[in-house]
Amino acid sequence: MLRAAIARPLAAGLYTLLPLGFRVAKKVERIIREEMDRIGCQEMEMPVLAPADLWKETGRWDLMDDHLFKLRDHGGREFLVSYTHEEVVTHHARNEIQSYRQLPVMVYHFRAKGRDEARPRAGLLRVREFVMKDAYSIDADWGGLRKSYQLQHDAYQRIFDRSGVRAIAVEGDAGLMGGDIAHEFQVLTDAGEDVILICTQCDHRANREAATRRVDEAVKADRLPAPEPFHTPQTTTIEQLRERYGFAPSDLLKTVLLRSADGVVAVVVPGDREVSEPKLRRILGVGDIKFANEADFAAAGGVAGYVGPVGLKARTLVDVSVEPRAYVAGANQADHHLRNVVPGRDFDGERVDAHDVRSGDHCPKCGGLLEAKRGIEVGNIFQLGTYYSSKMNATYLAEDGTRKVFVMGSYGIGVGRLVQTIIETHRDDRGILWPISVAPFETHVVALPMKDEAVRATAEALVADLEREGVEVLYDDRDESAGVKFADADLIGIPFRVTVSARGLKAGTVEVKPRERTEVENVPAASAVARIATLVREARARYS
Amino acid sequence: MLRAAIARPLAAGLYTLLPLGFRVAKKVERIIREEMDRIGCQEMEMPVLAPADLWKETGRWDLMDDHLFKLRDHGGREFLVSYTHEEVVTHHARNEIQSYRQLPVMVYHFRAKGRDEARPRAGLLRVREFVMKDAYSIDADWGGLRKSYQLQHDAYQRIFDRSGVRAIAVEGDAGLMGGDIAHEFQVLTDAGEDVILICTQCDHRANREAATRRVDEAVKADRLPAPEPFHTPQTTTIEQLRERYGFAPSDLLKTVLLRSADGVVAVVVPGDREVSEPKLRRILGVGDIKFANEADFAAAGGVAGYVGPVGLKARTLVDVSVEPRAYVAGANQADHHLRNVVPGRDFDGERVDAHDVRSGDHCPKCGGLLEAKRGIEVGNIFQLGTYYSSKMNATYLAEDGTRKVFVMGSYGIGVGRLVQTIIETHRDDRGILWPISVAPFETHVVALPMKDEAVRATAEALVADLEREGVEVLYDDRDESAGVKFADADLIGIPFRVTVSARGLKAGTVEVKPRERTEVENVPAASAVARIATLVREARARYS
Repeated sequence: MLRAAIARPLAAGLYTLLPLGFRVAKKVERIIREEMDRIGCQEMEMPVLAPADLWKETGRWDLMDDHLFKLRDHGGREFLVSYTHEEVVTHHARNEIQSYRQLPVMVYHFRAKGRDEARPRAGLLRVREFVMKDAYSIDADWGGLRKSYQLQHDAYQRIFDRSGVRAIAVEGDAGLMGGDIAHEFQVLTDAGEDVILICTQCDHRANREAATRRVDEAVKADRLPAPEPFHTPQTTTIEQLRERYGFAPSDLLKTVLLRSADGVVAVVVPGDREVSEPKLRRILGVGDIKFANEADFAAAGGVAGYVGPVGLKARTLVDVSVEPRAYVAGANQADHHLRNVVPGRDFDGERVDAHDVRSGDHCPKCGGLLEAKRGIEVGNIFQLGTYYSSKMNATYLAEDGTRKVFVMGSYGIGVGRLVQTIIETHRDDRGILWPISVAPFETHVVALPMKDEAVRATAEALVADLEREGVEVLYDDRDESAGVKFADADLIGIPFRVTVSARGLKAGTVEVKPRERTEVENVPAASAVARIATLVREARARYS
Repeated sequence: MLRAAIARPLAAGLYTLLPLGFRVAKKVERIIREEMDRIGCQEMEMPVLAPADLWKETGRWDLMDDHLFKLRDHGGREFLVSYTHEEVVTHHARNEIQSYRQLPVMVYHFRAKGRDEARPRAGLLRVREFVMKDAYSIDADWGGLRKSYQLQHDAYQRIFDRSGVRAIAVEGDAGLMGGDIAHEFQVLTDAGEDVILICTQCDHRANREAATRRVDEAVKADRLPAPEPFHTPQTTTIEQLRERYGFAPSDLLKTVLLRSADGVVAVVVPGDREVSEPKLRRILGVGDIKFANEADFAAAGGVAGYVGPVGLKARTLVDVSVEPRAYVAGANQADHHLRNVVPGRDFDGERVDAHDVRSGDHCPKCGGLLEAKRGIEVGNIFQLGTYYSSKMNATYLAEDGTRKVFVMGSYGIGVGRLVQTIIETHRDDRGILWPISVAPFETHVVALPMKDEAVRATAEALVADLEREGVEVLYDDRDESAGVKFADADLIGIPFRVTVSARGLKAGTVEVKPRERTEVENVPAASAVARIATLVREARARYS
């Protein structure tokens, strides 16, 4: 991406799209626009800056503080660089939409978003500013929302198909957006940062952040001896317990202490399971998980490295993976663990699903095996429901004469991320291979050598004729060698390379090479335009 | 604009473009894009946020502080919501452009800009966030810059012509942009906030902020008596001196005390002239003019209301309007003025042009009379020269083997402001009259009444046929009265209204009315599509 002059970093997480990359972004944007317009979604434009007041109405001003770029004007009024636009859309809806007769409404815009990402990385995949197409649906009821959601779902599938990426819809985590049901469109690639659990047997697919699994009914163990402390000096990790005492991690209990607004919270999972932060955020209703500090440990009666659920003075969440059988757990006493700790007998707590699901777990739908794969999230859709409208008192006059809150959805695609995903999934060791639907140009005309008058004249006539045929041409008229020009053509990755050379002209031909092939086609110069135009039209048809 | 659902305020100076307004903005954007592409200016996209470091390199971080939206990320790093993009473009240029062989380069983008405007007002004319098309030229030398500048100048004229506004190029003030030569494109209208001085005799035109005038050679007065104090209790204004003592304001001297980084500065102008803040900012090289406080008065030896240039302890700027003859001026002593103050004899200072030019002054070019008119600035172009490149050490390898700094220009058009200017200059008391080139739709089809099946069927077929002909149609299928529908059509201002009514269908006709006419044309239903398409094509041709 850098070598091909698609984009340039300006600062950590801030990128400029250079002309070549911008052309790709515009093509992606056009595909998205056509599909949004097709489902009756109306384009508009909301400001990048939003007044803090609206975000305070929904509570996201505080909840999402870590992720927001906040600022003040010289009069002291607070604003943010919009993270998304749910609050602003809901505000306009409550002012503009009076009656059920104006519903449903779907609107969208392409707008820069700001996110104070702590660790921007991976080029355009995780950035601090990016252009997002965000759409919003406003319906009178849940039935309407489901229809709008399905329209967007289908439009998204067409957008990704036309952009040349294979995106699959997976169950997602509504996260900081609020609402219940959410789907992500994931493109599977090892370059991805997300982990997707895919059932090998049925069509179930979920992001690890939201994934659940079928937990087998465990047999309740009876008549076990009481918990018994034993000496475990300097043994504070699951791994040390396994190495030194031979315990299987699945027979241990891991107890994690967290801070919350209401005091200390303990989360208990089996020793072979990881706590899922996204699930915990949702369970606790917080923007970020904060781990316990020394004071919290003291308050709960826990000892670092030896925390266990028995006798702990804290709200306790017990993961559904924890079975009603004997475990080894921390004794809340330095250098000691307890054996024969039986959940439900020796301690109790709220049952929650707070663990990471992984390869080999069972599908919650069919019981089949789940497989974990990496993916890039190229789009997401959320059934927000009344999350925003009820907090912001956004109502309309319903058919029955009462005032009701809007039922809403929101739908996002990051343009830059989609561009980079296309690159990640369409490249070889020489460079990019653009799908023609999003290629910066359709044909790359290379003249060799430029100082040959006949070559130059033929190449320029060819460029003009191709443009008249509606083919987009990049013309390399630099005074460089064949090696340099061909390497750059492969790097930039325009679908068809057309070479006008002195040797070719002697034989009356120009050379045509699709980027993905190694063999060339020598086409009579006289029919070159027609041949190339046909190849371009055929290629376009594959993405329409 | 509000009633026609073009835009909605979100907060002071922040506006959302509703779907109708957005369509207009997109058409304006398309016209601008076509004209930028035509002159070889390449589209790209730079972030809205910019790191403070780059703005510190040029000094604008501090110089423009009052106008910038600044923010910090959670790691404490400083950013701004870009006011313009000169620094960012110069930064990319110094990294990407190595050699003279890569020059000239022109780039542009459409991007949100943030400006902490203290008094946002007049709808989209003075806002705190707006989308600007900003273009930048990078040349090897001044000759190259002049060519790029002329290309942009001509492109701007075509853009405004095609958008249906009569914009005139006037000399402008480079202001906070740096550089020397600048032009503004002004649309003359009483709704404007700018004042333009226009010569009634030649083609000279200048914004008041930059306007100069021909100052007549004054005859030097000889043998005047020495300055003489006289008692003027409670007489601290020019107006009071005129009323109580009969002095003509032109025979008085006004002395204004300012603060600057180097101490107090006094500006002396004739009593009938206003000090021009933009000119003073340029003379002093500051972002904002700050008036003297009590300590400054004490340091300079001035007495509030009785400040005069004689004996003042301050750097003194004497406006070119001040003639070498006797004036009345403050005596720097409470309740006293001096008569017979002769500039050059009794005080001295740097000669500057620091006064506002006004109607009736003489043209600096031909000596003709200047006339002041109000205008809206819809575009501006700046010859930045080496203002940014020298501060940022942005150099390239020149043909002679030395490193030289880039010679640059910048060129801006605010999209929203242009939209509102079109409205201001295309309206009557019923609503807007869009030029067809920027109209949200080209034809407005009104069906009356909707419950008449034949009317509905005819209207829908007409809409479909017109769209097949490439005509953009807004279809009013609401269940409203003729009065409501016609009033809304006039308000929204789409160029052609086509009414399908029960009465018309009986006579086999539909009614066609251009927005700017009162009479209607009854067209046989069978030939309506052809007739409307012809009218639309003719209208389009007037703006191409």
